[in-house]
Amino acid sequence: MQVNDSQLTPLMFLERSAIAFPDKPAIRDGETLTSYAEMAAHATEMARALTASGIEAGDRVAYLCPNTPEMLIAHFAVPLVGAVLVAVNTRLSPDEIAYILDHSGARMLVVDESLTGSVETILGERNLDEVVTIGGEGGLASTDYDSFRARGADGEPLPWRVDDEQRTIAINYTSGTTGRPKGVMYTHRGAYLNALGEAMHSKHDPSSVYLWTLPMFHCNGWCTTWGVTAVGGTHVALRAVDPAEIWRLIGAVGVTHLNAAPTVLISLANHPDARPVERGLVATTAGAPPSPTIIAQMGDLGIEVVHVYGLTETYGPMTVCEVQPEWADLDPDVRVRMVARQGISMVIADPVRVVDEDMQDVPRDGATLGEVVMRGNSVMSGYHDDPEATAAAFRGGWFHSGDAAVWHPDGYIELRDRFKDVIISGGENISTIEVEQALMSHPAVLEAAVVATPHEKWGERPKGFVTLKRGQEVDEATLIEHVKGRIARFKAPDEVEFLDAFPKTSTGKIQKFVLREREWTEHGGRRIN
Amino acid sequence: MQVNDSQLTPLMFLERSAIAFPDKPAIRDGETLTSYAEMAAHATEMARALTASGIEAGDRVAYLCPNTPEMLIAHFAVPLVGAVLVAVNTRLSPDEIAYILDHSGARMLVVDESLTGSVETILGERNLDEVVTIGGEGGLASTDYDSFRARGADGEPLPWRVDDEQRTIAINYTSGTTGRPKGVMYTHRGAYLNALGEAMHSKHDPSSVYLWTLPMFHCNGWCTTWGVTAVGGTHVALRAVDPAEIWRLIGAVGVTHLNAAPTVLISLANHPDARPVERGLVATTAGAPPSPTIIAQMGDLGIEVVHVYGLTETYGPMTVCEVQPEWADLDPDVRVRMVARQGISMVIADPVRVVDEDMQDVPRDGATLGEVVMRGNSVMSGYHDDPEATAAAFRGGWFHSGDAAVWHPDGYIELRDRFKDVIISGGENISTIEVEQALMSHPAVLEAAVVATPHEKWGERPKGFVTLKRGQEVDEATLIEHVKGRIARFKAPDEVEFLDAFPKTSTGKIQKFVLREREWTEHGGRRIN
Repeated sequence: MQVNDSQLTPLMFLERSAIAFPDKPAIRDGETLTSYAEMAAHATEMARALTASGIEAGDRVAYLCPNTPEMLIAHFAVPLVGAVLVAVNTRLSPDEIAYILDHSGARMLVVDESLTGSVETILGERNLDEVVTIGGEGGLASTDYDSFRARGADGEPLPWRVDDEQRTIAINYTSGTTGRPKGVMYTHRGAYLNALGEAMHSKHDPSSVYLWTLPMFHCNGWCTTWGVTAVGGTHVALRAVDPAEIWRLIGAVGVTHLNAAPTVLISLANHPDARPVERGLVATTAGAPPSPTIIAQMGDLGIEVVHVYGLTETYGPMTVCEVQPEWADLDPDVRVRMVARQGISMVIADPVRVVDEDMQDVPRDGATLGEVVMRGNSVMSGYHDDPEATAAAFRGGWFHSGDAAVWHPDGYIELRDRFKDVIISGGENISTIEVEQALMSHPAVLEAAVVATPHEKWGERPKGFVTLKRGQEVDEATLIEHVKGRIARFKAPDEVEFLDAFPKTSTGKIQKFVLREREWTEHGGRRIN
Repeated sequence: MQVNDSQLTPLMFLERSAIAFPDKPAIRDGETLTSYAEMAAHATEMARALTASGIEAGDRVAYLCPNTPEMLIAHFAVPLVGAVLVAVNTRLSPDEIAYILDHSGARMLVVDESLTGSVETILGERNLDEVVTIGGEGGLASTDYDSFRARGADGEPLPWRVDDEQRTIAINYTSGTTGRPKGVMYTHRGAYLNALGEAMHSKHDPSSVYLWTLPMFHCNGWCTTWGVTAVGGTHVALRAVDPAEIWRLIGAVGVTHLNAAPTVLISLANHPDARPVERGLVATTAGAPPSPTIIAQMGDLGIEVVHVYGLTETYGPMTVCEVQPEWADLDPDVRVRMVARQGISMVIADPVRVVDEDMQDVPRDGATLGEVVMRGNSVMSGYHDDPEATAAAFRGGWFHSGDAAVWHPDGYIELRDRFKDVIISGGENISTIEVEQALMSHPAVLEAAVVATPHEKWGERPKGFVTLKRGQEVDEATLIEHVKGRIARFKAPDEVEFLDAFPKTSTGKIQKFVLREREWTEHGGRRIN
């Protein structure tokens, strides 16, 4: 290497923390602590084992695991040999997993014993050199993880370096509600910069105790796998998002930070174990716009919400709602509505824009709807093995998010919808997010979703779906009147349906397309997504 | 540009803060506040003025200014046209300034009116297109700053971008105690990364109020010119380091952070206005190893010392003494000695090494002396127009610091001396820093320096020089006995001389070479530096 130009790679973060904090807990998994020296040694052993097993630079290695120490360590072990990590969504069906294994061209799969049931029927037809099972027997014809790792027990230290920072470090498959998932490629450079950005905006430092409520398979945990390691914080493993267990850990192990979709925050705030966190806690949230209601509830619990926004294609979060000092003087209702906006680009990101169909900036009037477009080091290098989809996403030299937003006079963006979710009623746009937030501002409502339903006269009309808080009641007419008191009356739904639970994606997002498809099938309409 | 690969440049930090915090004070200069929007506009106007005045990408633009708003803004205005900032040490002699102007090939000079006396005799023979004076008339045949800036009043916004992140952003001349100063070249990429590293390790965030006690001409203020701008903090201009004024500002404008050499901290701690800072303050220190004594004094004042180490060739700080959680349990005397070590590489830096003459790592025994060597994105791209000096500094693929250090078992390095300052007495190495810290642990001592003096039998022996705290007294024999009680007796000086004041460099370092030369001249000895 040159004297003055190290290629950027998050591998250097583990190298450094193993030097700076060798004996500090890098990972807490129940009662088991792994120090940074042990984490680096484990990653090195796995990397040597990968090489001993024929894995070469550029090869894809798939992992199907909950948020375990092994899944975290894979974020360093796999790139340490120049290979590419494919962390697969644990809630996919066997067919979907088979598609990802085939499309990524994964040469091996590491699977947690709890998930062997998701793959046992599909492994026979896959083109894998080897399957490794973590823990137990699992019933698969596979190698045991410890035996595999033992192949790398002896050998030289490996350099925590990459020969080219533009090399792919990971491929993350989108959960695409329509069509096949696409493989989003992250580079070492992008992962390095976005990890630092996450660490800065989520206010991490060596005293961080970070609870893994966000799946690591989701944008590599928004690059926090690498970011918390960079600052030398402690990762707390978590196999399932259970509010009671999260509240227990917040008290028992001194959790200081977590990342989660708003839906997880809602389940935390409304859990009987909820109580104010005396020492404070930072909850970084994205995945859907958090309602002002939940931001206020979090504040009451002593939990500071850092609101970020991005997509799988932007390494997870790319913008952050920077809280301005003068907001402290605002009426609390106004303040939480400010925090509910998606904000501005993170410190390591290029400015985002909101554009019209001709790629011209929309007016910064807080009203004109446009599409959010991005570029810079926070944007993927492309879709794996899909140059057409890449070219389409990158048309005009910008990544097209598909998200509809307004641009405020202060430069902050505010999402109004996925473009395909916008309701067009009598020629007027209705933002489903705006209607949802109006529904959620009713004290009885736990969660809400709004979709278009076909209408003979207006083309489309909004329909609301809600779940209620435990022990709370409200009737449909009251709810609709409540909404009409908060937003333009024509935007209020004509109908609200009460559900016991919402269909959700693996990352906790409400699957609005499921609700919408049912509406359009029932009413015999057709809508192109 | 590509969709997914922005060239790294600190210019983006001002772009972002002008979007994120347009109305927030970017700079406080006395009662005058400059917002981030105004700062970005000022930089843009100056950049257009530079272009209108014939400055092109790659040209050098010299500034001779105290820590004023104009000096800070130059860190963005000059690179905004792809030109190279040469911030000249304000305490140099006219001859030294002439050398730097000539060697850098500066095409123009911007000089503060307070410093016109340093250049009026030399400008006639320089090859400058234009001289610009900030404020007043200054007596020079020069353009007034406001008139110059007005040339760029109208025009298009300029992109906060660079075409190649390896382009030079600044040249900083070393203060070299021997020979001519060398021009250390910083790249946009290096400045970007080191600015982020400074921001993270000095714990900056948007609420930072950063007092400019460190000269901006010194490693571009350790890249904090760019780093505090990145987080959107407030810069507080300061024209001279006056302890009374610093204490006044800490109270009056809520200073949260400052950077300073230990000698400045000593003058702060021992000033009559010193009082505990209730809300806390981070003082990042480097330039010389801070004594455990001053670290403890700062702690008593509620000031957290972040101890960093580096050279002009490493963008200022490259290592940081990370304070380990378990140190909190140590005896305070032991704890401050731990904090006095130089520590480990910053998060954005490659690991440093301590090596012997064959470039092999010295044992990590806390005792074997070796040279600190560095590489990576924290190392300069080279010396301007001096390939021979660059090759010498980079021999063996590492930058050679010239600093003698030991490597501790925990991976932390601890400086013992500049190699040329090490005393060799009867074949044993004596670290002057160790002897100085023993002298400074005496409560009457304000500052101390130790140099070699020639000795017929032992070759060299240490001699101490001290200044005393106001109103304190101690005699030579008592001081020597005090030292013998703390370190090996043979390392104690045979003689201690009491001074009224030390000769110091412009950055506040004691000029040991002045003391040493006097000793060797007086004793008729010869020593090659």
